[in-house]
Amino acid sequence: MDAEQLRENAHKMVDFIADYYKSIENFPVLSQVQPGYLHNLIPDSAPHHPESLQNVLDGYIDIQEKILPGVTHWQSPNYFAYYPSNSSVAGFLGEMLSAGLNIVGFSWITSPAATELEMIVLDWLAKLLKLPEDFLSSGQGGGVIQGTASEAVLVVLLAARDKALKRVGKNSLEKLVVYASDQTHSALQKACQIGGIHPQNFRVLKTDSSTNYSLSPDSLAEAISRDLTIGLIPFFLCATVGTTSSTAVDPLLALGNIAKSNGMWFHVDAAYAGSACICPEYRQYIDGVEEADSFNMNAHKWFLTNFDCSALWVKDRNTLIQSLSTNPEFLKNKASQANMVVDYKDWQIPLGRRFRSLKLWMVLRLYGLENLQGYIRNHIQLAKHFEGLVAQDLRFEVVTPRIFSLVCFRLLPPHNDEDHGNKLNHKLLDDINSTGKIFISHTVLSGKYILRFAVGAPLTEWRHVNAAWEVMQDKASALLARLSIE
Amino acid sequence: MDAEQLRENAHKMVDFIADYYKSIENFPVLSQVQPGYLHNLIPDSAPHHPESLQNVLDGYIDIQEKILPGVTHWQSPNYFAYYPSNSSVAGFLGEMLSAGLNIVGFSWITSPAATELEMIVLDWLAKLLKLPEDFLSSGQGGGVIQGTASEAVLVVLLAARDKALKRVGKNSLEKLVVYASDQTHSALQKACQIGGIHPQNFRVLKTDSSTNYSLSPDSLAEAISRDLTIGLIPFFLCATVGTTSSTAVDPLLALGNIAKSNGMWFHVDAAYAGSACICPEYRQYIDGVEEADSFNMNAHKWFLTNFDCSALWVKDRNTLIQSLSTNPEFLKNKASQANMVVDYKDWQIPLGRRFRSLKLWMVLRLYGLENLQGYIRNHIQLAKHFEGLVAQDLRFEVVTPRIFSLVCFRLLPPHNDEDHGNKLNHKLLDDINSTGKIFISHTVLSGKYILRFAVGAPLTEWRHVNAAWEVMQDKASALLARLSIE
Repeated sequence: MDAEQLRENAHKMVDFIADYYKSIENFPVLSQVQPGYLHNLIPDSAPHHPESLQNVLDGYIDIQEKILPGVTHWQSPNYFAYYPSNSSVAGFLGEMLSAGLNIVGFSWITSPAATELEMIVLDWLAKLLKLPEDFLSSGQGGGVIQGTASEAVLVVLLAARDKALKRVGKNSLEKLVVYASDQTHSALQKACQIGGIHPQNFRVLKTDSSTNYSLSPDSLAEAISRDLTIGLIPFFLCATVGTTSSTAVDPLLALGNIAKSNGMWFHVDAAYAGSACICPEYRQYIDGVEEADSFNMNAHKWFLTNFDCSALWVKDRNTLIQSLSTNPEFLKNKASQANMVVDYKDWQIPLGRRFRSLKLWMVLRLYGLENLQGYIRNHIQLAKHFEGLVAQDLRFEVVTPRIFSLVCFRLLPPHNDEDHGNKLNHKLLDDINSTGKIFISHTVLSGKYILRFAVGAPLTEWRHVNAAWEVMQDKASALLARLSIE
Repeated sequence: MDAEQLRENAHKMVDFIADYYKSIENFPVLSQVQPGYLHNLIPDSAPHHPESLQNVLDGYIDIQEKILPGVTHWQSPNYFAYYPSNSSVAGFLGEMLSAGLNIVGFSWITSPAATELEMIVLDWLAKLLKLPEDFLSSGQGGGVIQGTASEAVLVVLLAARDKALKRVGKNSLEKLVVYASDQTHSALQKACQIGGIHPQNFRVLKTDSSTNYSLSPDSLAEAISRDLTIGLIPFFLCATVGTTSSTAVDPLLALGNIAKSNGMWFHVDAAYAGSACICPEYRQYIDGVEEADSFNMNAHKWFLTNFDCSALWVKDRNTLIQSLSTNPEFLKNKASQANMVVDYKDWQIPLGRRFRSLKLWMVLRLYGLENLQGYIRNHIQLAKHFEGLVAQDLRFEVVTPRIFSLVCFRLLPPHNDEDHGNKLNHKLLDDINSTGKIFISHTVLSGKYILRFAVGAPLTEWRHVNAAWEVMQDKASALLARLSIE
């Protein structure tokens, strides 16, 4: 680590990255390489002698020629797949600073600023979202940055599990039951597998278009009552605000009341849509969060904070700590022993942790609430515009009502042949993505294959949305023409 | 995200970070702030209007004045605590590039280069470590980058648990037993808590100075046999090469044979010492790794790769996948469905993942095996030198034989009063660390409070080790003088 060597080469890297953003529209959005492409481009083993910095960095030949063709460009303005993963100037600078300091902030003492800044900015964000005061660090609760929403739901599931087992006896693990809708992210299923929840005790409650794929409180109440009758123990409910498939919004208040009256932990996953709730007009979608024990949103999705940064709040931090703490001698220190500080190692799965609050702090300061609201609203406007374009083309249908910045749509199957419709849309997706011009993804709702158009990349403008729709129309026309000939 | 704004500000950030490294010796190594220090320095809520970049970045006043005093400087040449967490030019550049591309590489398709480069560089590293071929990606095994060793041991514990439950029936969770020595990292205890292993079935086998705190195969064999007698099911053994307290090395071959003959999963945690095994003269310490099912080393500790980058290899990747995969519709794609590719989401806890192989690739290329070996050897020489200094001062003793770059030592208690000795060394640790000149940490071995001097920061030179020893001698003299007056 030579400071001048760092300076010289990092400046080159800055230019490389800035140039990348300038030319990002020239790349196919979805990488078009074949599996195994890199194997023949890179030697079989590490070099014995060092390569010169010149070699690897100047001109960045290897990165340009070998790596970039295999990159799917999440930051492209033509990226509309899955959900976005935002990069920004502020987020990038925060990530750089964090990598520069390269601390490992498992305990307060290992860098007090890392812990304290995290507490403060998560309080900031909680206030922007108008979360109940119980989630602030001044009381029994608090926020923590997890890597991903998967880790967030896992740690609260474990906290809830151990809290329940304390009550009902630790040999009752196989009686514990988890509830969620069939639209809930697969991360919950994975958390259940990890936490040893009996696979038969994971209640995946069916949803359909009658509730726009949101979880019906009646179906929850029924399931709980059935389980209680046969001696099982309901202990965890996960509701979603903005499901992955279609941005469905579960009714938090009604669900929360049921959870509460049954002594269950109530977790709210707003990984994607949480960001929108900093706008007063979208805050209603998390009404009822007062009933929740934990709430999660991913700042790395749609909040300009580079991956990874998943914000989790809990009302009772001690439940997390009781489930996840260890206290080995070699980590003991005065501040921790005196209980004067937060040691985030006990709020998460790993021991080590990066200084991730820096980037969220920079995002909040450099953009301010005002710009962040404008940013969200602009994407929602773009999605609304796209929804309008789809609605005007009678060959297509918008499948679920658009709420945030995702539009679910499909090409209507000729002659109402649904089986054929699924193949048709699957083919259309492949045709669209293999152009490299845009990247969209899909889902299945009530057996129907659906195309997803998720607006949210920071560089996306009106012209990109319009051009994307043209690509889709062209590919649909070509596909339908081929079909009519066949 | 404006490319020119990024360029301008990221150049400033580069200079800030390069200047930080130039002046790093001016900071107290261990932050000297009091709990809650930041609360009064930062507003209570996020700004409504954006702050100008000028404000936050030019001169970096806030970072200089508010954040840096709360940083414990892991990259300082005077940092000798815990284990090192290396930063390097190559590691930093890789981290920058990863943050710049900001992809989320959960499946192959989301950036083929991220998956394929990871497979290739982990094969490279496996070859440098002369790991058995079974760990390479060309067979049934392969490597994966986890965030931390905690996550590595968790995922293999889960794989082992589910493999065992498949054999003995899924209602037998409470019969499964885990074995490790009392020197094993607390991450294993945490993994057991998470995975629902019955707390009474976690066998913490006692070690002592007679084996230099390594796990005795006899004590393992006895424990297994006792458990089998009472109908329990031994399923997981964790051995350590380079324990956290004292770099003890468990005898892999003998332990592995016992694990194998009992059908158990055998995991080797070489989080710290694994790096040294790229040198032929230290490779012997992982002899017997042929018997292991999984092997872990942290490239982010002592291998110049910025945090986080924990390398895990398994012999049978399907066990991981069977335990950790989910397959939601919205992530399905041709390459995955056709089983043509690796989707690392099924090898880890989170779904999303950063492009971490870039930094490891850059480290291996820019330094080459040659320089990396020199780097390790230099630190070990420095530790050996420090060991010599301690041995020459009869007021101190070296407590365990130094193997790698950690020296465990203590101030001898006057009049052989061990109780007093523990307080004395605890006091000495506080006195040393509160100078801010160096940072060391401690452990307890056989009831004795021990000081740990871990060499491994990239900037540490002979002069730093000598100066550190002077600080310790001075503080010891002062402490002993105070005692003789009292």
